[in-house]
Amino acid sequence: MEAILEVKYALDTFYFLVCGALVMWMAAGFTMLEAGLVRAKNTTEILTKNIALYAIACTMYLICGYNIMYGDPISSFIPGFSVFGLTDHTAELVTAGGDDAPYYSKLSDFFFQVVFVATAMSIVSGAVAERMKLWAFLTFCVVLTGFIYPVQGFWKWGGGFLNELGFLDFAGSGVVHMTGAVAALAGVLLLGARKGKYGKDGRINPIPGANLPLATLGTFILWLGWFGFNGGSELKLSDVGEANAVALIFVNTNAAAAGGVIAALITARLMFGKADLTMTLNGALAGLVAITAEPLTPSPQLALLIGAVGGMIVVFSIIALDKIKIDDPVGAISVHGSVGIWGLFAVLLSNPDATLVAQLTGIGVIFAWVFVTSLIVWGIIKLVMGLRVSEEEEEEGMDFVDCGMEAYPEFTSK
Amino acid sequence: MEAILEVKYALDTFYFLVCGALVMWMAAGFTMLEAGLVRAKNTTEILTKNIALYAIACTMYLICGYNIMYGDPISSFIPGFSVFGLTDHTAELVTAGGDDAPYYSKLSDFFFQVVFVATAMSIVSGAVAERMKLWAFLTFCVVLTGFIYPVQGFWKWGGGFLNELGFLDFAGSGVVHMTGAVAALAGVLLLGARKGKYGKDGRINPIPGANLPLATLGTFILWLGWFGFNGGSELKLSDVGEANAVALIFVNTNAAAAGGVIAALITARLMFGKADLTMTLNGALAGLVAITAEPLTPSPQLALLIGAVGGMIVVFSIIALDKIKIDDPVGAISVHGSVGIWGLFAVLLSNPDATLVAQLTGIGVIFAWVFVTSLIVWGIIKLVMGLRVSEEEEEEGMDFVDCGMEAYPEFTSK
Amino acid sequence: MEAILEVKYALDTFYFLVCGALVMWMAAGFTMLEAGLVRAKNTTEILTKNIALYAIACTMYLICGYNIMYGDPISSFIPGFSVFGLTDHTAELVTAGGDDAPYYSKLSDFFFQVVFVATAMSIVSGAVAERMKLWAFLTFCVVLTGFIYPVQGFWKWGGGFLNELGFLDFAGSGVVHMTGAVAALAGVLLLGARKGKYGKDGRINPIPGANLPLATLGTFILWLGWFGFNGGSELKLSDVGEANAVALIFVNTNAAAAGGVIAALITARLMFGKADLTMTLNGALAGLVAITAEPLTPSPQLALLIGAVGGMIVVFSIIALDKIKIDDPVGAISVHGSVGIWGLFAVLLSNPDATLVAQLTGIGVIFAWVFVTSLIVWGIIKLVMGLRVSEEEEEEGMDFVDCGMEAYPEFTSK
Repeated sequence: MEAILEVKYALDTFYFLVCGALVMWMAAGFTMLEAGLVRAKNTTEILTKNIALYAIACTMYLICGYNIMYGDPISSFIPGFSVFGLTDHTAELVTAGGDDAPYYSKLSDFFFQVVFVATAMSIVSGAVAERMKLWAFLTFCVVLTGFIYPVQGFWKWGGGFLNELGFLDFAGSGVVHMTGAVAALAGVLLLGARKGKYGKDGRINPIPGANLPLATLGTFILWLGWFGFNGGSELKLSDVGEANAVALIFVNTNAAAAGGVIAALITARLMFGKADLTMTLNGALAGLVAITAEPLTPSPQLALLIGAVGGMIVVFSIIALDKIKIDDPVGAISVHGSVGIWGLFAVLLSNPDATLVAQLTGIGVIFAWVFVTSLIVWGIIKLVMGLRVSEEEEEEGMDFVDCGMEAYPEFTSK
Repeated sequence: MEAILEVKYALDTFYFLVCGALVMWMAAGFTMLEAGLVRAKNTTEILTKNIALYAIACTMYLICGYNIMYGDPISSFIPGFSVFGLTDHTAELVTAGGDDAPYYSKLSDFFFQVVFVATAMSIVSGAVAERMKLWAFLTFCVVLTGFIYPVQGFWKWGGGFLNELGFLDFAGSGVVHMTGAVAALAGVLLLGARKGKYGKDGRINPIPGANLPLATLGTFILWLGWFGFNGGSELKLSDVGEANAVALIFVNTNAAAAGGVIAALITARLMFGKADLTMTLNGALAGLVAITAEPLTPSPQLALLIGAVGGMIVVFSIIALDKIKIDDPVGAISVHGSVGIWGLFAVLLSNPDATLVAQLTGIGVIFAWVFVTSLIVWGIIKLVMGLRVSEEEEEEGMDFVDCGMEAYPEFTSK
Repeated sequence: MEAILEVKYALDTFYFLVCGALVMWMAAGFTMLEAGLVRAKNTTEILTKNIALYAIACTMYLICGYNIMYGDPISSFIPGFSVFGLTDHTAELVTAGGDDAPYYSKLSDFFFQVVFVATAMSIVSGAVAERMKLWAFLTFCVVLTGFIYPVQGFWKWGGGFLNELGFLDFAGSGVVHMTGAVAALAGVLLLGARKGKYGKDGRINPIPGANLPLATLGTFILWLGWFGFNGGSELKLSDVGEANAVALIFVNTNAAAAGGVIAALITARLMFGKADLTMTLNGALAGLVAITAEPLTPSPQLALLIGAVGGMIVVFSIIALDKIKIDDPVGAISVHGSVGIWGLFAVLLSNPDATLVAQLTGIGVIFAWVFVTSLIVWGIIKLVMGLRVSEEEEEEGMDFVDCGMEAYPEFTSK
């Protein structure tokens, strides 16, 4: 019996690590997606930004974020206080059995959680692309990943008041995706639109991305990574019931993404008369975000529908944000924000434990917390170092200004 | 003992899900491969097509395909009849033990199977590239993934007459790869060659792909995904014999791909005097297709050889198809069709249970079924909506016609 | 009890296969990294080289390399002698238990090891890019992967004298990474710098890479693959202590890479005034190389620091090599060589079993062995077939000379 508990512990730990590696891979997905959707002259900068934000997120979460979210929220501010020493669960503790016995490595949990915070920050990156100063962005990244994200994460997943209230968010349509989108929204409001995006005559000028295969690759990477994101959030795999649950989550995640693709493709076809690739890609992501709050209780058919509604919402949300001149080059606020909210409501469709009040409260609290704190932090950064590059620099491209090198020196002719 | 059966169930389910995720990743591989091998002006369309076909395949297989292939072939046509409810195997059933006890989640099996049907459809996409109407293609996709593929899949893997006959196809050189290639062949015959491919003087004009790093990335993705494709087809991992089998399949799959690369590289060098990258990439894929019908019984050295023969065949097949003016921009018919057939014969080299008659019958039946049904469906589509864009549209590029956006707006100058 | 041993065997085998698949994926990472960092005109060649070297490495290691490294070093030279037949560990042997009982499939071990040798060879590829003849390179590949690498691998991991001496190299900062870098160094010394890299007036001319998103993708792929590289090197997962160890390795590997990114980004900013993307990417890889010699005994905080020092070293090493006119287009010698050595010393920081003498001996022995044998082999190749393309061919690009096709025919205008 003790040997079995050890094997189960090893299996659940391995499952966590595999899922975590898939979520880490999402960092590459966001990077490719965003790099494909900006213009060539801003590509090096967005690549630099994305790899740097992943590194900063991992560092800040190690230094203090994980502790705020899952540990003692006060001791974690003591400098040098580490998330954990080298002590993980002992074999004795594991094989003692009982309901309180740990069943996977603490460190595998940290690994899984750390890649989540990076995901939240990646969302911000796309929305502020093509005009925000690199170092302003990275400064914000330190605060979001080390403080803003972990605090609201604690409220839900750390066992805080949102959790006690009955707010349901299985894998983070709210805690991760809406959080990223709201932080982005606050930044975009202070930052303003890209030069030339909104004409004086009310015209909305499309600014096409430079490399659509890259954006498509990014979407496929995210789709793959999402199996880890949602599948790992079950937290356990090692018995029949849990294994079935993880399998259902994989099936539902895939079905929702498929629904999102088809719905966005058709919606865009009806509205614009063309099979709009960027809308279709955003449809896939919308389907994934929509199912993230509850990938376990729907049937696959319902998951398909939840994703499809997400795919429709994202098209209309992107159009609506453009109408009110909120300039989001990659559609991140729509994909992760508008559809994240839809996902939190969609929990009500299949999970009998969900209540409208709790979901509304959760959405409201997370929105308010993230928006206000982000606005303050973006505001301070704006005052101290400025958020936006100069007009000439924007014209010339971020790559030259911030990075001193072009992404495609031989393909574009200035 | 019951606890062990539960752990084994969890491990086998997890193994299925991991392998399934790898096969899903092959969708990205086909997309990148094909996007790299077409011209810039047709890239957005092929990206759109590939993500859409994956979504449609997943949806159709959920609605009816899986049921046709593995369930009751009549009830599955009743609209709204679902593949399964939320019921998966109960713990009681699993721990009852015995030969009939289920040992992995039904849902994980569905997940694994659904990514296979998408693979078959991805093969078609490349062969008809650069001149087929997007919506004609997607319409065919609905029928292939919802009906044509599942029917022949039932004949072999669902326990139908090909299986009873002793036809051997471990992971689908025939059921998946040849099926895709034959459906593509039927389409290409009705569609005709790309404008300018075959000169009036009998000249074959090469039409180089726009982005070879992308094509190479696609090949590596497919190579990685194939470990899941073949490795997962063992269907079980949780004891010593099964674990050894899965390990051997990984080794053989890798060896065959390596053999395919080396053989195609050398063959192309001897024939053209150059190290032809696209032939080398197709050599890797040919090696993989060749070993797919039987990755378990050969030694790694034999697997290397089986792959190498595949790598040679693909070069000659591509040349031969061009001679008879069957225009396949990415070589999909050769890779998956010609080499798929080789793979089915290669089973005879190492598996004593294989018979030439059964293999020939299997090849003939699948070929005939897929070719005839596909020809009918392509034909109907041709009559109703047309298969091919106009000459002017082909000249201008599919991207503008179908998608309204360019894949690389800043890199190409019209 | 016997059943548990079987499940553990299956789990450890599966863990090995998953980690091996991740390491195989690193081949794609190196390919994309290098293809992104060379000029457009040399891209097809480097793609061809990378897929071919992976195939050759897998073949040579199957034919003789694995046997030299882990088996009988004499019998392995007998032609046709195979690494293994189809016999893997029997269930009887596994369930007999005891300290000597095998706990994972031999074949899964082979799979894991074979992808390691390909990694070592991939390192060479980048350093000699843009001027070495393709077939000269592939000839060297045969010798390195079939002989040079396995011999020193035997000295450490096969249980040879370096291991008995107490030289510590957990996952191969020396055995894999420094080996690749030193073989590359020997080649570069005989090959010389690219035309135009070092001006007659002492100027160092930057030669920018053609496709930085590709290079960034390659870095992310390598980062992901490294979880398999280091995580799999624990060799076991199936009890509480081992599962904790693997989890810690994942966390430390990620932390070191993050540290490398941040340190390289800041160092480059201070030195050049810009956020240098290529330095940042090399910083990530440097962090990964640095932690590879000992990813298990440091705390995550120390791992972050070890990676950060690696990230600083790589910047200075790249600058220093340029000063002494050692031309390495992708920085491979610095990343894998200079930082590999740092990693081997860093073992002393956390592992009480490490001694300075043993680490110095290991570094010296591997360096001397690989350098001398590589120099001899490169020298013979130079005499027999020549290492370098002609000046006119270098000017025109390797793609035309060796491969007869352009990587981006529509994006670049000659």
